[in-house]
Amino acid sequence: MQTDLSTLLNQALSQLDYGQQPAALYDPIRYIMGLGGKRLRPLLTLLGGQLFTDELAPLVKPALATEVFHNFTLVHDDLMDQAPLRRGQPTVHEKWNASTAILSGDVMLVRAYELLFDVPAAVLPQVLRRFSQTAAEVCEGQQWDMNFETETTVTIPQYLDMIRLKTAVLLGFALELGAVLASASADDAEHLRQFGTDIGLAFQLRDDLLDVYGDAATFGKRVGGDIISDKKTFLLLTAQAQANAAQQAALAQHIGQPVADAEAKVAAVRGVYDELTIRPQTEALINQYFEDALLHLARIDVPAERKEPLRRLALQLLERES
Amino acid sequence: MQTDLSTLLNQALSQLDYGQQPAALYDPIRYIMGLGGKRLRPLLTLLGGQLFTDELAPLVKPALATEVFHNFTLVHDDLMDQAPLRRGQPTVHEKWNASTAILSGDVMLVRAYELLFDVPAAVLPQVLRRFSQTAAEVCEGQQWDMNFETETTVTIPQYLDMIRLKTAVLLGFALELGAVLASASADDAEHLRQFGTDIGLAFQLRDDLLDVYGDAATFGKRVGGDIISDKKTFLLLTAQAQANAAQQAALAQHIGQPVADAEAKVAAVRGVYDELTIRPQTEALINQYFEDALLHLARIDVPAERKEPLRRLALQLLERES
Repeated sequence: MQTDLSTLLNQALSQLDYGQQPAALYDPIRYIMGLGGKRLRPLLTLLGGQLFTDELAPLVKPALATEVFHNFTLVHDDLMDQAPLRRGQPTVHEKWNASTAILSGDVMLVRAYELLFDVPAAVLPQVLRRFSQTAAEVCEGQQWDMNFETETTVTIPQYLDMIRLKTAVLLGFALELGAVLASASADDAEHLRQFGTDIGLAFQLRDDLLDVYGDAATFGKRVGGDIISDKKTFLLLTAQAQANAAQQAALAQHIGQPVADAEAKVAAVRGVYDELTIRPQTEALINQYFEDALLHLARIDVPAERKEPLRRLALQLLERES
Repeated sequence: MQTDLSTLLNQALSQLDYGQQPAALYDPIRYIMGLGGKRLRPLLTLLGGQLFTDELAPLVKPALATEVFHNFTLVHDDLMDQAPLRRGQPTVHEKWNASTAILSGDVMLVRAYELLFDVPAAVLPQVLRRFSQTAAEVCEGQQWDMNFETETTVTIPQYLDMIRLKTAVLLGFALELGAVLASASADDAEHLRQFGTDIGLAFQLRDDLLDVYGDAATFGKRVGGDIISDKKTFLLLTAQAQANAAQQAALAQHIGQPVADAEAKVAAVRGVYDELTIRPQTEALINQYFEDALLHLARIDVPAERKEPLRRLALQLLERES
């Protein structure tokens, strides 16, 4: 079923008309949107809607708004982060230039809004307000993330709030959008939103964990990349909060210092993490968010079997057995 | 009356809440919005609405959308153009940095949309579609403007279309918005939009003209700046199209060459313009757009005296006597 929905979404995406002229403005949009990806956010909208209706056709176009919005944030974030690659291909600012990344991104945000304008008039203001609030929150998350690069003290609650804003709220909105468009009750839509936010937090923490403990062959990024770049992840912040004097010294020898030997740095920091049981602590927090997500899913007033595709997607995202 | 409306707008602008945290995201928005300016676009919305209604209060908040949008384009354009100053003060990317200019600008676009969500449900989809179309066109205009910097041949129709997109369509939309919110007929709203677009074209051509022939004391920018930077304005493109061999040679000696003596360059290029009567030719085109604007104003089905404030604003913008 999920495969069918993905096919439906990719077909709809391939038919979107972002604009033609000037080509320098619209080619980069087709390029980034054509790089693929899981199309997770519109899939969540359809799966969210499917809890309440079998009539998914009217949900497809608005579902794409979150995908176009997500790719807009990738174009601008990659420029801000000076990232050379996205999905293994040159980023827009690398393939074209910074101005193109800015301006094509801007138009993508406009096009994301446009994809929502066909929703029923009765829910249009609500959908637009919630989308705008989410969009601003995603920008806030990116700003906190950039702030944290230069701040000396970042607390764990601050970090969790940053990833909530930067990553999780958009997953929550995508699901809520599906519920609203399928005429769910306000309570059900809210539980679905919280389910999505929790899954988003768990997903991001899992990404932090895989960066240190993942399998190089399947992770898709360089293992240890966060450690090498001194990224203040949940793992590092927890280690710094729990380290004894010797462990503090071991961390301080590497974090915020010029990197002479990247492998040695990763090994040393991971050694401290191992001593402090950072891995099981992170897994425990992921579990908590996952359990909380399931509680919200349980409280949605539809038969359990309708929830199965959504539960399976969550399991799959977090690569869990059950 | 216009002074009263400006006071009303500035008061409403000063009460807008763009957001608080992170301050690094929202301070730049308050900064750029606080630099002042004529508030021309929201003023056009109110004056457009005033043709059809005396009840302007419901128009004030949506009117601000075009002002926030306009300032968003200034923040991103100034970054793309690497401009150091805006209204005599440091630009956002100079005062903060490029990432801040990108991200704060993005949130401004979101906030601009939000200002429109309270309009009556019956016109909301129309207003949002037209705003989005206009927003995309403004981006297209900026892209053409950047393209033209490196293109060897730019035609006069291409140039006029660029300034139409980059500058004029937003003035047209601001007026149309006032008409739509004041329940004008579709015909009247369309004439008002075209009035605004024509005035915008005339205004931009006048800006091109003042760059060469303006009074240094009142122009506000460096006179001759367009000539020094080889900007392909209506004046230069017309001169290049009409120059004889000797004049072509005189232009080629300066345009696209390293600038040894800026004053000599300005004097030489202006000399060619004078020989070719570029000034009266530009004034004639400005007049044509102005006359066309007045024809559209005349066709709006309200008593002439209601149109007087709008006609006076247009005269004032173009610094004309009548």
